[in-house]
Amino acid sequence: MFQINKTDLQFKEKSNMKFNVKNFSKQVMSQIASSSILPPITAGLILAITFSVILLAGCGKKEGTTTLNMSEDAANKVYVPPGQYDEFYSFISGGFSGQMAVYGLPSGRLFRVIPVFSVDPEKGWGYTEETKPMLMTSHGFIPWDDSHHSELSMTDGVPNGKWIFLNGNNTPRLARIDLKTFRTAEILEIPNSAGNHSSPFTTENSEYVVCGTRFSIPMKELDVPIDSYREKFNGTVSFVKINPESGNMNVEFQIMTPPFDYDLSHAGKGPSHDWFFFSCYNTEEAFTLLEVNASQKDKDFIMAVNWKKAEQYLKEGKAKDVASEYYHNVYDESKHSASSEVLKTVKMLDPKDCPDMIYYIPCPKSPHGADVDPSGEYIVGGGKLATVIPVFSFSKMLKAIETKQFDGDVAGIPVIKYEAALHGEVQKPGLGPLHTEFDDKGFAYTSMFVSSEVVKWNIKTLEVVDRAASFYSVGHIMIPGGDTKKPWGKYLVVMNKITKDRFLPTGPELTQSAQLYDISGEKMKLLLDFPTIGEPHYAQACPADLIMKNSVKIFKLDENKHPDAIKSVNDARVERRGNEVHVYIGMVRSHFTPDNIEGVKVGDKVFFHVTNMEQDWDIPHGFAVKGNNTAEMLIMPGETQTITWEPKVATVYPFYCTDFCSALHQEMQGYIRVQPAGSSGEIKFSLGVKK
Amino acid sequence: MFQINKTDLQFKEKSNMKFNVKNFSKQVMSQIASSSILPPITAGLILAITFSVILLAGCGKKEGTTTLNMSEDAANKVYVPPGQYDEFYSFISGGFSGQMAVYGLPSGRLFRVIPVFSVDPEKGWGYTEETKPMLMTSHGFIPWDDSHHSELSMTDGVPNGKWIFLNGNNTPRLARIDLKTFRTAEILEIPNSAGNHSSPFTTENSEYVVCGTRFSIPMKELDVPIDSYREKFNGTVSFVKINPESGNMNVEFQIMTPPFDYDLSHAGKGPSHDWFFFSCYNTEEAFTLLEVNASQKDKDFIMAVNWKKAEQYLKEGKAKDVASEYYHNVYDESKHSASSEVLKTVKMLDPKDCPDMIYYIPCPKSPHGADVDPSGEYIVGGGKLATVIPVFSFSKMLKAIETKQFDGDVAGIPVIKYEAALHGEVQKPGLGPLHTEFDDKGFAYTSMFVSSEVVKWNIKTLEVVDRAASFYSVGHIMIPGGDTKKPWGKYLVVMNKITKDRFLPTGPELTQSAQLYDISGEKMKLLLDFPTIGEPHYAQACPADLIMKNSVKIFKLDENKHPDAIKSVNDARVERRGNEVHVYIGMVRSHFTPDNIEGVKVGDKVFFHVTNMEQDWDIPHGFAVKGNNTAEMLIMPGETQTITWEPKVATVYPFYCTDFCSALHQEMQGYIRVQPAGSSGEIKFSLGVKK
Repeated sequence: MFQINKTDLQFKEKSNMKFNVKNFSKQVMSQIASSSILPPITAGLILAITFSVILLAGCGKKEGTTTLNMSEDAANKVYVPPGQYDEFYSFISGGFSGQMAVYGLPSGRLFRVIPVFSVDPEKGWGYTEETKPMLMTSHGFIPWDDSHHSELSMTDGVPNGKWIFLNGNNTPRLARIDLKTFRTAEILEIPNSAGNHSSPFTTENSEYVVCGTRFSIPMKELDVPIDSYREKFNGTVSFVKINPESGNMNVEFQIMTPPFDYDLSHAGKGPSHDWFFFSCYNTEEAFTLLEVNASQKDKDFIMAVNWKKAEQYLKEGKAKDVASEYYHNVYDESKHSASSEVLKTVKMLDPKDCPDMIYYIPCPKSPHGADVDPSGEYIVGGGKLATVIPVFSFSKMLKAIETKQFDGDVAGIPVIKYEAALHGEVQKPGLGPLHTEFDDKGFAYTSMFVSSEVVKWNIKTLEVVDRAASFYSVGHIMIPGGDTKKPWGKYLVVMNKITKDRFLPTGPELTQSAQLYDISGEKMKLLLDFPTIGEPHYAQACPADLIMKNSVKIFKLDENKHPDAIKSVNDARVERRGNEVHVYIGMVRSHFTPDNIEGVKVGDKVFFHVTNMEQDWDIPHGFAVKGNNTAEMLIMPGETQTITWEPKVATVYPFYCTDFCSALHQEMQGYIRVQPAGSSGEIKFSLGVKK
Repeated sequence: MFQINKTDLQFKEKSNMKFNVKNFSKQVMSQIASSSILPPITAGLILAITFSVILLAGCGKKEGTTTLNMSEDAANKVYVPPGQYDEFYSFISGGFSGQMAVYGLPSGRLFRVIPVFSVDPEKGWGYTEETKPMLMTSHGFIPWDDSHHSELSMTDGVPNGKWIFLNGNNTPRLARIDLKTFRTAEILEIPNSAGNHSSPFTTENSEYVVCGTRFSIPMKELDVPIDSYREKFNGTVSFVKINPESGNMNVEFQIMTPPFDYDLSHAGKGPSHDWFFFSCYNTEEAFTLLEVNASQKDKDFIMAVNWKKAEQYLKEGKAKDVASEYYHNVYDESKHSASSEVLKTVKMLDPKDCPDMIYYIPCPKSPHGADVDPSGEYIVGGGKLATVIPVFSFSKMLKAIETKQFDGDVAGIPVIKYEAALHGEVQKPGLGPLHTEFDDKGFAYTSMFVSSEVVKWNIKTLEVVDRAASFYSVGHIMIPGGDTKKPWGKYLVVMNKITKDRFLPTGPELTQSAQLYDISGEKMKLLLDFPTIGEPHYAQACPADLIMKNSVKIFKLDENKHPDAIKSVNDARVERRGNEVHVYIGMVRSHFTPDNIEGVKVGDKVFFHVTNMEQDWDIPHGFAVKGNNTAEMLIMPGETQTITWEPKVATVYPFYCTDFCSALHQEMQGYIRVQPAGSSGEIKFSLGVKK
C-alpha cells in the first residue's frame, strides 16, 4: 500500500495553472494544423508532445504543499452497511462491451450487467432461441456492438423510472430497456446511419429519442469512391417516436444533413422544449486523417433542430419515402420471446424543402458535448480542442433567427452569428472541455479531457468557482438528473478514459474506472475510485425509490404465454417431429421432469423447452447439456426458454442445473441417450423409474 | 434506506439453536428417504418444509436482544482511498458465466473479468481469429461453459503467483491463466469425463492438477440404455501434469472409478503430500431423481488416492491406452495467437490392476467439501445433508490401511472403517456443512448451507468457538491461502447462493453476492456485502505483492512474432489473394494507417490484421467496422489481432477505434469501399491523401 502518488499531486498542482492557456493552445493548434504536411505519425507525436508540454507547464507549483480535495469522511460517506440500500441507481453505458451496467451510489457496487447489443454467456442472452432475434440486423445476426450513451425516459423533463434507452454505435441501433425487469425490451436498427453516436437523447416527455450519424455515408448512390465524400456522402438525424404507454419505438422521420460528424445532442427544456441541439465536428468534411484534417477550423457547429416544425412538415407531406431495410426486434414479456420484423421504408425530410427547421450555431472547436441547463435557456458546447467553454442563450438564438443575424449558410441551412447566440464564454476553464452537467444550485460542471479535471462554474456569471483533479483523462461526467430539469445535486460521477495506477494491476489490460465526488458543498470532494465494466462513456442516475417500487420479482407461471411452456409437470413430455425432437422440461427444486430421456438419434435437432416452475424470488435455474455448442440458459421463476442441440456422437449425455438452487442442487441432473442415426429406438422419457 | 432487516435477526437468532439438531435431522432424512414412494415434487416439498421447520425451530430466542456481529469500524476497514491499493487479489470463479473475476480485498471491487471458457464481447475473446481456437473442443466451437473452482499454482504448498487454474464443468475442460498478463494461456479438454467438477485442485508443488467427473458416463461401450448405469457407467479422476517452467498441461493419466459423482477434492500437504482426497456422493449409483435416490445412505465416501503410487504403476506400464479425442488449445504470447492440437489417446489406470492406490473412507452424508488443514494431518468432509462435521486423521488412515481395518470393498477398492480413520466429529455445527477453510491460528471455518452461517471451530479440540450468520445460503467460503499450508488469516469471504434483499433490486434476476468478514480477532465480524459476476462458487486469494510485481504492462512491439504484425507504418498495406483481402493496419494515436481502402468486392472475405503500435501502458485501441458480424477487437499496446468480414452490400463502410485513446480519438476513423462482385476496381489504400 502506498500513499497518494506523485501523479495525483501533479494533477492537483496543475489546477493552479498560471500560464496563458489560451495562447499556448492556439500555438498547439497551429502546429497541429501545419503538421498535415508531415508524415501523419509525426503529427500525432507533435500533438502528444505539445499536450505533454502543457501538462508539464501546468506543474509550476505555487507553494510547497499541495493536498488532494479528499472528503475527510469519505469512508463513511460511501459505505452502505449490510442490510441497507444504496441511495441511487446509476446506469453506465458499457462502451465496447455493448451492454449497460447498473451500479449503486454512493457505494459504486455493480448490481447488474444488462445484456443489450452483445451476447452474454452469464445470462444466455443471444444463446437461447427466444433471445436470438434481438440481435438480428439487416447485416445478419450480430453478437456485438459498442454502446455509448444511456438516457432515462422522462415526464416533464424529469426521469419517470419506466425505461432507459441505449445506443448501438457500430451497427446503428437503439435499445429500450424495461426498468421493471431490467431487461432489454426492444432493439430498433437505424437505417441511413453509420456510427449511431449522438443518441439516445430524448425530449422532455420522451416523445422522441434521437439518433444522429457520427459517420456520414453515401445514401442516394451507394457504391461511390471515398474521395467523392463532399458530393456524395450525407449525415442523418433520426427522430424515433416512443409510444407513451408501451414504449414501442419507430423511426418517425429522418432529416438528411451535410456530411459532418454528428457527435452528441440534448433536447431543449421548458422554453426550448421544441428544439434539439446536436454538436457537429468535422465540418471540414474530411474523409482521411481526421486527426489533422478535421482539426482545421476554429469553429464547428451546434445544430439546432426545431422538431415541432419537422413534425409539421411531416404532416404536410414534405417527407420522401426512402427504401431502407432495417430490423425491429421486440421482446414479448408474456411469451418470454423476441421476434423480428423487417421494415422497408423510412420518411426523409430534406432541409432544403423545410425552411426554419434547422440552424447552425458556430461553436469552438470540434465540440463533443451539447448540453442544456435545467432552465432550458443555456446551451453549453464542449469544444474538445477549445480553450473556452461557449454558453449559448436560447432566447438570443430565437432573436437572432427572428432578426436574421446570419453568417451565410451551409447547404441552405442558415448559420447564426456566433456572438448573436452567445450568452458568454467561460474563460480559462482548463484544456479539452468535453461535457457539462448541472446541479440544482445554478452551477455547471465541465469535464476537461486534456487537463484531466472537472471545473465547476456559475451558469449565469460564467465564473469558475472550483476545480477538481480527476485520474485520468476524464470523458463524460454525471450528476443524478444532471441533464434533466431537476438535478439531484449530491454526487458527481467522473468517468475516466485512462486507469493506469488506480487499482491493482491486471496485466496490459486494466479495468475502466470512475470516480465519485461529493458536490453537496461549495467544493467538490473526492470520495471514491470505483472500477467499471467496459468503457464508461455516459451515465444516468436517479433516486432508488423511483425504480425499486416497480421492480418485478418473479414471472407469474399462470400468465406464461410461451407456446412451449408447461404449467404442470404432468405436461412434461418429449415429442418427435421428423428429425426434430422437442423436449418439454419442468424444473422445481431439485429435479427435472423428465430426467431420463431416450430415443434421440444422431442427425436429430433437439429443442429443450425448459420451464422454471418456481414462484419464489431469486430462485432461477440454469440448464446445460454436455458438449452443446449453444449451451447456456438462465431461467427465471415462471419463465420458459429454449436451446437447441445437435449431438454428433451416439452415447449418453448428462444435463444439469447450472444455478445453485437448493441443498440438493448438486443432485439436480438427468441423462439423455443419443443413438446412432437410423436406429430403431423409440422416444421414452421418465422420472424416478428405478431398475 | 432501512436498518438491519428481520431476516438478519432470524439468522442471528438461529445460531442459538437449542434443540437436538442431530435427532431432528435424522427424522428429516428418513422422511426424505420414505418420500421416494411419493410423487417426486412432493418429496421436494417435504424436504423444503422440513428444512423450514428446522429454521423456525432454530428461532427459539434465548434472550431478548440479538445483535448482528458487525465490525464497529467496518466502513474504514473496507475503504481503500484513491491512490492506495487493495491488500489482496481475490480470484472468484464465475459459475455459469464461464469466466473468472478478479476482486480487490478488502474493498470488494471488481478489477477484471478474465475471459476463459466463454466468449467475451468486451475483450473480443472468441471473436478474433487469434482467440477462437481457445474455445475449440471435440464437440466443435463452444462459446460457453460453467466454471466452478479456481486454484492458484503453488510451491511447497504456498501460492507462488505464477498461474491460476479454472475448471470447465459442462464440457469438461481445464484452463490455466497466466498471472503476468491475467489472460487464459491454455485450455485442455478432459476426455472420459462429464461435469468436470472436482477440479482444478493441485498438489503442493502443482505437480498435478486433478479433474474428477461429477457425472459418470458410459466409457467402454458408448450407446447404452440409461438404466444400465450400474453396469456400464464409470467415473474417472484425471491427473494433469504441469510443466513447472512453462505451465504446459497434459493428461498424464486417468483412473477409472465406480459410477459415483465425484464432487470436490484437495491434495494432501506435508505428511500427506503423496495423497489426493475426493468427496463422492451418489454412492447409491442412482441415475434418476437423485434428489431422493442419491440421499438414501447415511454415509458416502471420501476417496483417498495415492498419486505417487499411481505414478509408479504408470511407469510400470499398468496403464492402458484408451482412444479418446480431445483438444489442447495453447495461446502463444509471442505470436498473440492460439492454436489447437487434437489428441487421440489417454493412459487409463484401473484400480483392479493397482492395489494400494485408492481407498474409500465413509463420510456422512452426500459430502461436498474435502478439505485438508494446513498441517496436512486433518481431512474435513462437508456432508451437505449431515449434522456433524467429520474430521479424519491422515496418520490414523495410514494406520488403518496398514492394519487392514476395512469394511469390505467397492469394486475391489477397500473401504476403511469410519472410526479407524476418524479424528472426531464437530458436534452441533449447524445444518448442511459444505466447505471448510483454515486460518493460521489452528481454527477451521465451515460453511452451513441450510442454516446459512459460518461456524468457527478448533481443529484439535473440535469445539465450536464462534458462528456468524450469512445472507443467504452460503456455499463456499474463502480465507486467503485458506486451503494452503500458510493461510493469511485476516479476512473471510463468504459466497452466497441467494441474494434477495441484499442490494437494490434489478428485476427477477439479481446479482450474485459475497460477504466479507474480519477474522483477525476471536469473533468473526461482518464488514461488507459485495456483489459478484456470475455465481461465485469458489475463490482463491493472495497478498497483492506476490502478483503485482510481475504484472506485464505492454507487449513489446519488437518481440511481436505474429505473422501478420507490422512493426512500422511503412509496412501497412492491403493485399488481394484470390477472394481474400488481407488488410494490414497500424494504429497510433489518433489514426489508422491506411484509413482509406478501395477495391474490396462483394463475395470477398476481408481479414483485418490490426497492430496496436503504441508502447505506453493503458493505451489499448479497439477496431470495428459497420455491420461486421464478428466485430470486436480490443488490442493491447504491441499486440496484433485479426477479424474477418464478409460484406454483402456494395457501399462505403466506416471503421473506427472503439477504445477512447486520446483527445482526438473521435477522429480516429477510416472508410473502406466495397464494390459489386465482378467489378474491375483494383486494391487501393492510403492515408492523408486529399482530393
